[in-house]
Amino acid sequence: MYKIDLNCDLGESFGAYTIGSDDQIIPFISSANVACGFHASDPVVMQKTVEMCAKNNVCVGAHPGFMDLMGFGRRPMKISPAEAKAYIIYQVGALKAFCEANGVKLQHVKPHGALYNMAGKDYGLAMGICEGVKAVDPSLIMYVLSGSQMQKAAEDCGLKIAREVFADRGYMADGSLVPRGQEGAMITDDNIAMARVIRMIKEHKVTAVDGTEVEIIPDTICVHGDGEKAILFVKGIIEAFEKEQIAMTPTGDFV
Amino acid sequence: MYKIDLNCDLGESFGAYTIGSDDQIIPFISSANVACGFHASDPVVMQKTVEMCAKNNVCVGAHPGFMDLMGFGRRPMKISPAEAKAYIIYQVGALKAFCEANGVKLQHVKPHGALYNMAGKDYGLAMGICEGVKAVDPSLIMYVLSGSQMQKAAEDCGLKIAREVFADRGYMADGSLVPRGQEGAMITDDNIAMARVIRMIKEHKVTAVDGTEVEIIPDTICVHGDGEKAILFVKGIIEAFEKEQIAMTPTGDFV
Amino acid sequence: MYKIDLNCDLGESFGAYTIGSDDQIIPFISSANVACGFHASDPVVMQKTVEMCAKNNVCVGAHPGFMDLMGFGRRPMKISPAEAKAYIIYQVGALKAFCEANGVKLQHVKPHGALYNMAGKDYGLAMGICEGVKAVDPSLIMYVLSGSQMQKAAEDCGLKIAREVFADRGYMADGSLVPRGQEGAMITDDNIAMARVIRMIKEHKVTAVDGTEVEIIPDTICVHGDGEKAILFVKGIIEAFEKEQIAMTPTGDFV
Amino acid sequence: MYKIDLNCDLGESFGAYTIGSDDQIIPFISSANVACGFHASDPVVMQKTVEMCAKNNVCVGAHPGFMDLMGFGRRPMKISPAEAKAYIIYQVGALKAFCEANGVKLQHVKPHGALYNMAGKDYGLAMGICEGVKAVDPSLIMYVLSGSQMQKAAEDCGLKIAREVFADRGYMADGSLVPRGQEGAMITDDNIAMARVIRMIKEHKVTAVDGTEVEIIPDTICVHGDGEKAILFVKGIIEAFEKEQIAMTPTGDFV
Repeated sequence: MYKIDLNCDLGESFGAYTIGSDDQIIPFISSANVACGFHASDPVVMQKTVEMCAKNNVCVGAHPGFMDLMGFGRRPMKISPAEAKAYIIYQVGALKAFCEANGVKLQHVKPHGALYNMAGKDYGLAMGICEGVKAVDPSLIMYVLSGSQMQKAAEDCGLKIAREVFADRGYMADGSLVPRGQEGAMITDDNIAMARVIRMIKEHKVTAVDGTEVEIIPDTICVHGDGEKAILFVKGIIEAFEKEQIAMTPTGDFV
Repeated sequence: MYKIDLNCDLGESFGAYTIGSDDQIIPFISSANVACGFHASDPVVMQKTVEMCAKNNVCVGAHPGFMDLMGFGRRPMKISPAEAKAYIIYQVGALKAFCEANGVKLQHVKPHGALYNMAGKDYGLAMGICEGVKAVDPSLIMYVLSGSQMQKAAEDCGLKIAREVFADRGYMADGSLVPRGQEGAMITDDNIAMARVIRMIKEHKVTAVDGTEVEIIPDTICVHGDGEKAILFVKGIIEAFEKEQIAMTPTGDFV
Repeated sequence: MYKIDLNCDLGESFGAYTIGSDDQIIPFISSANVACGFHASDPVVMQKTVEMCAKNNVCVGAHPGFMDLMGFGRRPMKISPAEAKAYIIYQVGALKAFCEANGVKLQHVKPHGALYNMAGKDYGLAMGICEGVKAVDPSLIMYVLSGSQMQKAAEDCGLKIAREVFADRGYMADGSLVPRGQEGAMITDDNIAMARVIRMIKEHKVTAVDGTEVEIIPDTICVHGDGEKAILFVKGIIEAFEKEQIAMTPTGDFV
Repeated sequence: MYKIDLNCDLGESFGAYTIGSDDQIIPFISSANVACGFHASDPVVMQKTVEMCAKNNVCVGAHPGFMDLMGFGRRPMKISPAEAKAYIIYQVGALKAFCEANGVKLQHVKPHGALYNMAGKDYGLAMGICEGVKAVDPSLIMYVLSGSQMQKAAEDCGLKIAREVFADRGYMADGSLVPRGQEGAMITDDNIAMARVIRMIKEHKVTAVDGTEVEIIPDTICVHGDGEKAILFVKGIIEAFEKEQIAMTPTGDFV
């Protein structure tokens, strides 16, 4: 039996503003990345989201991001490793408190948006993030882009890692993602996307845009929960998993 | 030997903005109320402040306030008990993470500014705050205005409490503070203020503005750390304590 | 021919967050209250909204609110008249600049949410708001709850006013709104609501909850643009207006 | 008689936080760059600052920056030209309203901090800023780093410009500033700094770090108002100007 985690961003609503379809996607995932109030969410939303995860037996992770609500944390900002460390301690600490208030254990941390992308390429920034996570709780699992500077920093820090892959993204020969906007960046055919994911899980291989066969070891797959199409895709993946003897399992159970 | 805690608000700087003289007051207090990023402070300041407390053997408390940086948390806002609970979990959780990162235990929680004042008179709001504190860690000590709705809610919640008194404020016959702006609200003579504090500690009595003798049991005294005069007053109190056999002791050691 | 303005709150989206159905309601209104970035909206949304108003010949008003994005400006906050004045100058000035950038004139100002409600009952706060509006441009029309302290302050300030009525709200014998939560607060039957509005316009009368006939002179009616039901109601009102010889007209044309 | 403008950043306080010594520097400058509430300041501070400028006959400019109060606008953020344009319209419009409220004309716009530095090197970003300024008021003077992409964009836009030079910074042979941290970045000797400034004004020349003589035409000099040393320097410059027949003159009078 193969094991794979399905993670999805949840709890991105803010005040009177609703985003995402959290209640529709939550039955189909094993782990949730919960926004922590910097790029999205607020304390009331965090409470509701963690409570919903607890009720649905979905493991909770922190999804800390840039202090840029107006840009939803998607805009690169230059921050120092020391700032990154402090921002991570703050956000992860806040979410951990909601976990404790709801009787669940915080499972993992996955940086959000531009912070995730920047840390994937910047070892110093990645190390700041990892030191923040370790300072809060060294048993937390760090979700990292497979093969990134983030993976290297987390390993150097002694943190447990879960290597993340993307069903809907193309890969380069070196294992990095094809940048958005370039040809082959997005896998738009759902059947092809599913077949690629299953091959990654069972064979540890993915075909890069240039045809190269790349080795890739996936612990967790990032799926989306916004909109009908996204949810249909997740349902399709789960059906496919059952046929292929792949068990959806939170990373906390096997990493 | 009598025991009393001296608490002071610390860590209220924000980004490029500095407020208070934290490094000058810290040698003379036993407990610090550390701002949590809503009404003041930011994650970098929180890290520095908790580190400074740890080095100076000053016990750390959370000082959560309203999400109103522009008004420094001093302006009343109408929030529901459920919002209060969530805001407390968020802020206390964030500060607790900095404590863990610096190897110290979070000792207490003291609501800040307008939130403190409103909760002192509003049992429902006070209960929201207490439930938030209890959800994060039921062993935390709640700093309460002696005789307030906050004290009642904390006791009903089963939280340990520290009754707070003010050296520089006048009292009403019912034990509440004379509202600012009214005659007798402020005790401006330092010698009188010190004598009143010592009498509260040793005799559990304070003379109200109308001459009534009021019973008051102080566990902790709020002192200020902004400016030379404030620091001189604290030094004076500490000298007086030594003569009077009063030991400055953090509430965690005797509550 | 009777004249009446239909005003609706627009431009309340923020960053990645969308709220309201601005493009669906805009063909059916004469004036828009555009959020100014404190309780909702951001500069990019303001630019889009003013541009959309300009294209649809809808007159633009500023909709300044409390600096409380998390509470959408719906939570009472205690601010001084001087603060209110400064917040109004800031927000109205910002929106006026978008009007100038899009070649339209700013027509009016309508305080938002809790600020509107508080200023309706607090002459000092209302005067702070009116002084702010006058300081930016004394030719601006102030939208006021008919009969409120806001109306009084605006008149005392020498500002032009537009008296606002609500189709879906019940009235007290003194002309004030039945507070939400009380019986008779909401008019839920669309046909009754329309009949009441038409009677207000043609006869300057409304029946209060206690049966009293109250005099009321409406210059503008507040309608909602969020959701299918709201838009159907506005379409219905407009059809009724045509039959009743009532012309939808922006306040700038008749106040 | 030579003419030169002395500009200084003012109005950077925020809520309970004070920064700078605005009242001490204001008698010695001709133009003020007033923060607009994104990277620093708030509406109450803006009102006070513009009022103080009006009383001291100091011309007012807008000093718009990044929406990053925690980083004081000093951290690079990736924003699109359309976002920059909207942020500029918002901030400049807000400050212009305070000018109108205080009976003075807005003279100029100078981007702040990281936005100034980024726009100096990025024509697209600079053009977004210039289009925003032009949309608010095409008669505004744009303060630009002499020889930068910002100067080019402002000229292409048809805006009037004032070329800014720095008394305390070293120059490269191509007229750009020596990056902070490199040798020669700062001119620390006040007498040398003054002599350099006077030569720029009278001879349009500055000696670069490599000894090259660089042509430079200064319209305005940026001075600092934080701290005793900074104010002494400005007083010294003004005395020197008197001897050298250089008249401190706001850019609005000669650009």
